[in-house]
Amino acid sequence: MNKKQIGNNFFIPMPVVLVGTQVSGNANFMTVGWVARANANPPMIVCGIGNHHYTPKGIEENGTFSVNIPSTDLIVKTDYCGIVSGSKTDKSKVFDIFYGNLNTAPLIKECPVSIECKLVQITPLPTNSLYLGEIVGVWVDGEIMADGKPDINSIDPIFLSMPDNRYWNLGEHIGDAWSDGKNLKLND
Amino acid sequence: MNKKQIGNNFFIPMPVVLVGTQVSGNANFMTVGWVARANANPPMIVCGIGNHHYTPKGIEENGTFSVNIPSTDLIVKTDYCGIVSGSKTDKSKVFDIFYGNLNTAPLIKECPVSIECKLVQITPLPTNSLYLGEIVGVWVDGEIMADGKPDINSIDPIFLSMPDNRYWNLGEHIGDAWSDGKNLKLND
Repeated sequence: MNKKQIGNNFFIPMPVVLVGTQVSGNANFMTVGWVARANANPPMIVCGIGNHHYTPKGIEENGTFSVNIPSTDLIVKTDYCGIVSGSKTDKSKVFDIFYGNLNTAPLIKECPVSIECKLVQITPLPTNSLYLGEIVGVWVDGEIMADGKPDINSIDPIFLSMPDNRYWNLGEHIGDAWSDGKNLKLND
Repeated sequence: MNKKQIGNNFFIPMPVVLVGTQVSGNANFMTVGWVARANANPPMIVCGIGNHHYTPKGIEENGTFSVNIPSTDLIVKTDYCGIVSGSKTDKSKVFDIFYGNLNTAPLIKECPVSIECKLVQITPLPTNSLYLGEIVGVWVDGEIMADGKPDINSIDPIFLSMPDNRYWNLGEHIGDAWSDGKNLKLND
């Protein structure tokens, strides 16, 4: 066995989203790579966001936020929103904005998918906090729908690996979940 | 604008891991697609796991778990661990196992990366719970190291999209974080 122990700050590529908030009445967007589904029913999302950021102010102020999924063609604007803080720079004009069911969760027109969340709970951790939100609306571009469902290839999402800080696109459909494993014969 | 509202149970592809536990002294592995980094320092991971599963018993019993990252060549065994419950089937022989710093967090030899976690907190939600763990050890195959760092292409991770339940591989390196956005000129 050739296993080596490396530093503890390593994980595989994660999907990149733009978290939208309204801070003191102004729309703001922050790039977030630490996001996952959290609860099945009702559907919830959890985001890990650094405590020093501007975005938590908007989440706490309104109890709402949005999770927008950028395509790879938005990579420059997406990265910009992770470099520049809303505390110093007005990011409300970086994207065209629309609203769904909530009037304090700005959604990004250029993103193929935008998700509206109502804040459920904040879990403070040493350097970050977990923002748990219930999904109350999912908005997609009509153009990315295929057979009545969003087409993952058309969404063309971005992934981020850390600590090497590289963006990746999605590869190919390589298998089917709750299906391929039925073929396993142990002791093969 | 051509935005449509769809059902709330939609999200983009997420990385797939195998969560390892020891239940009543026996190793068990479960496929988990709802996982993200949670805290920067100390490094933490959060997993959303259905409350009806067998894995939570092991996490609660020992206060430890592992997060193993399978390559695409392990897709059949990975999917199998998401179909079959440890409550009915002994999954301890599906993989070769090794241990790192914790003696109750079984690690998978065939996975290029295995992460040991100490349980920090459980957040119960309606159908799932969030298991927050501090990373206390990261073990990688020597063969996947390049320039002293794990090579993401060699890890060759699996992603899962839901609710269409498809597995995907990673695509190409398309940009650099905290870098590409420096080139943004607004009003271009």
